[in-house]
Amino acid sequence: MNAELKVDFPDTVHAVEWIGDAASGYLKVLDQRLLPGIETSLEARDVDAAILSIREMLVRGAPAIGCTAAYAMVLAVREAQTSQSDWRERLRGLADQIKAARPTAVNLRWAVDRVLHSLETVDSARALAATFELALRIHREDIEANLTMAELGADCLEAGAGVLTHCNTGSLATGGHGTALGVIRTAWEKDRISTVFASETRPWLQGARLTAWELNKSNIPVNLIVDSASAALMQSGQIGSVIVGADRVAANGDVANKIGTYSLALLARSHGLSFMVVAPFSTIDFEAVSGDQIPIENRPAAEVFNIAEKRVAAEGIDAWNPVFDVTPADLIDWLVTERGVIHKPNTEALAKVRSGT
Amino acid sequence: MNAELKVDFPDTVHAVEWIGDAASGYLKVLDQRLLPGIETSLEARDVDAAILSIREMLVRGAPAIGCTAAYAMVLAVREAQTSQSDWRERLRGLADQIKAARPTAVNLRWAVDRVLHSLETVDSARALAATFELALRIHREDIEANLTMAELGADCLEAGAGVLTHCNTGSLATGGHGTALGVIRTAWEKDRISTVFASETRPWLQGARLTAWELNKSNIPVNLIVDSASAALMQSGQIGSVIVGADRVAANGDVANKIGTYSLALLARSHGLSFMVVAPFSTIDFEAVSGDQIPIENRPAAEVFNIAEKRVAAEGIDAWNPVFDVTPADLIDWLVTERGVIHKPNTEALAKVRSGT
Repeated sequence: MNAELKVDFPDTVHAVEWIGDAASGYLKVLDQRLLPGIETSLEARDVDAAILSIREMLVRGAPAIGCTAAYAMVLAVREAQTSQSDWRERLRGLADQIKAARPTAVNLRWAVDRVLHSLETVDSARALAATFELALRIHREDIEANLTMAELGADCLEAGAGVLTHCNTGSLATGGHGTALGVIRTAWEKDRISTVFASETRPWLQGARLTAWELNKSNIPVNLIVDSASAALMQSGQIGSVIVGADRVAANGDVANKIGTYSLALLARSHGLSFMVVAPFSTIDFEAVSGDQIPIENRPAAEVFNIAEKRVAAEGIDAWNPVFDVTPADLIDWLVTERGVIHKPNTEALAKVRSGT
Repeated sequence: MNAELKVDFPDTVHAVEWIGDAASGYLKVLDQRLLPGIETSLEARDVDAAILSIREMLVRGAPAIGCTAAYAMVLAVREAQTSQSDWRERLRGLADQIKAARPTAVNLRWAVDRVLHSLETVDSARALAATFELALRIHREDIEANLTMAELGADCLEAGAGVLTHCNTGSLATGGHGTALGVIRTAWEKDRISTVFASETRPWLQGARLTAWELNKSNIPVNLIVDSASAALMQSGQIGSVIVGADRVAANGDVANKIGTYSLALLARSHGLSFMVVAPFSTIDFEAVSGDQIPIENRPAAEVFNIAEKRVAAEGIDAWNPVFDVTPADLIDWLVTERGVIHKPNTEALAKVRSGT
C-alpha cells in the first residue's frame, strides 16, 4: 500500500481510524462513552453518523475531533458528489454542519477549512482521492506533532518529581500518543517523572475512565484523585508539575480547556509548581485575541445529576455545567507546540512562533 | 414530658434522634448513604450498632457525629451496667471504642469525654438518667449553637451576592439547622443572598445528594456544580462568598474539613471573595497547636473507583483518597462560632474567645 495512504499508530489505542479505501471505506470511531467497561466502535458511513460521533462525544479531545472532522470531509465529498451538479455548494453545507458539531474545539473548524481550502484547486474527478489523502495526512501530522511535543515537553520537566494531569489527552484524545499525556508517556519512558496522578475529571470522568485505562494499557502506574483533592496533593509535596492539553488557545496564550483547568493553574501557581499546556499548533486560534472571545460550551444539567446513567443528585434542583474554562496566559509557565516551547506565553511570543521567526 | 427530656428540631430533617426513654429506648440514625433515593433509619440498640453508624458513615458531619456519640454513651452506660461490678471501667472501654470510630471529627471525642467527665460525680444509680439528660442537652445545645451561628454568619455576608458551599453542613450534618448551611438557610430567609451554589463533593457526593436534597425540602433553589467548576464560577462573578463547615479547627485557626475545602479557600482568596468557616466552639481542638497536628483520615481507594456502588474507573490502578484537607488560618476571613465571629482567626483571637474575654 502507498505509504501516503496509511497511518502508523504509535500504540494499540486508536480513537479514530479510516477502514478501507476512499470510495467504499468508512470511518471507525471508538465509542469512548462506554470505556473502560466496553470496547465498541461506531462505523460512520455518512456525514450524519460522523457528526453524531462528535456531537454525542463518542470521540472527544480537540485533536481527535480534528482527525474525525477530516475523515468526515471524505464522507462529505462522497455524499456531495452523488449529484453531479453543484457538489461544491452541497459540500460547503455539509462542512458547516460538521463545524457546528461542537463549539469549542478549534481543530474541528481548522480541519474542515483546511480540506475546503485544498479542494479549491482540485478537479471534481480528483476531489475524493485528494480529500482522503489530506485526511490521512492530517492524521499522520497529528501523531508526528504529538511525538515532537512529547520530547520537547519532557525535557522541560523538573526531573524526578511527580506530575498531575487532568481529563484525557492521550491516544484517545488525539490521532495517537497524546498531547499532555504524550509528554507524560515519553517522560515516564525516559525516567524523568516519579509518579503520575490523574484527576477523575467530573462530570464525564475522562481521567478515571480513559486516562487511567490508557496508562494501565501502557504499564504506567497511575494514582487517581477526586478533582477537589488537587490542592491537597500539591500541598503534600508529591508533584512538581501540572500538565494539561487545550481545546483552544487564544492569540494571547489564554487557554480554553476542560472545566477545572483554570482551577489547577491557579492552585499550581499558589504552590510554586510549574503549569504546562501541551497542544498542537492547530489548537491556536489567532482570530481570538484573548480567552473571552472563545465560546464556552454549556452542556445539559443531567450530566451533573447523573453518573453512569444513574441519578445521583437530589430532585428539584438546577445545575451550572460549563464544560470548559479559560486559563489566563499569565498562569501558564510552558506552552508546548510541535513548533517549539513557549516559556510564559503572550501575544508576541505566539506571533513569533506563527511567523516562524 | 419534662422539657429537659426532649429536643425541639428546627425542621423536618432529623439526622439523629433518641426514641423512647433511657432504659428501653434506642438511637435512631438516618442512613444518609442511601439518600436522596431511599429514606431509611438504623435503630441502634447497643454500642456496636451506634459505632457502626459512625464508622460506616450512615451519619456524618462533625456535630451530628458528636450528638450520635453522646447518645451512644447512653447505650454504653446501659450496657456497662448489665454487670454490677466495675461498670465504670467497662464504660471507659466502650467510650474508647466510640472515640475510635472516626479519627478526624473532634466533636466525637469531645462529646464522649464530656459524658465521662460528668459521670465522675454521679452515683451508679443515677448514671443512666444523667447520661441521657446530658445527651439530650448536648443535642439541644448543638441546635441552639447553630441558630446563633446562623444569625451571626448571615450578618457578615455582603448582601445580595451569591454563595457557594461545599459538602453538607445542614440538618443532616448537625443536631439540626446546620452550620454553614444554617447560615445560608437564615441568610436566604433574610433575603441577604441571591443564589446558592453547591459543589457536588466527590467522592461521597454529599453536595449533590444531601445539600441539594435539604435545600429542596426547604424550598431554597440550588445550583449544583462539579467540584472543579468552582474557580470558573468565581471568575464568572456569580458569587461573593464561600461558606463551609469544619471537622476540626486547630488552636491557631487552621481548619480540617472535607477534601476540597483548602482548594476553595485558595481560589476564593485569588478572586477576592470572602471565605467563611462556620463551626460550633466544640469543633476547636485547643490541643492541636496547628493544622499539621490534626490526623487526616485516608479512606479506601474504592470510594474513588466506584460511584453508587458501580465501578466507573479503569482497572489496575491506584487512588489517593484523603477525606479531609487542612486550610491554613490565613486564608479564612470569618470563623463563626456560637461564642462570636472571629475576623481573620489566629491563636490569640481563638484564645480570647475561649477565655471569654
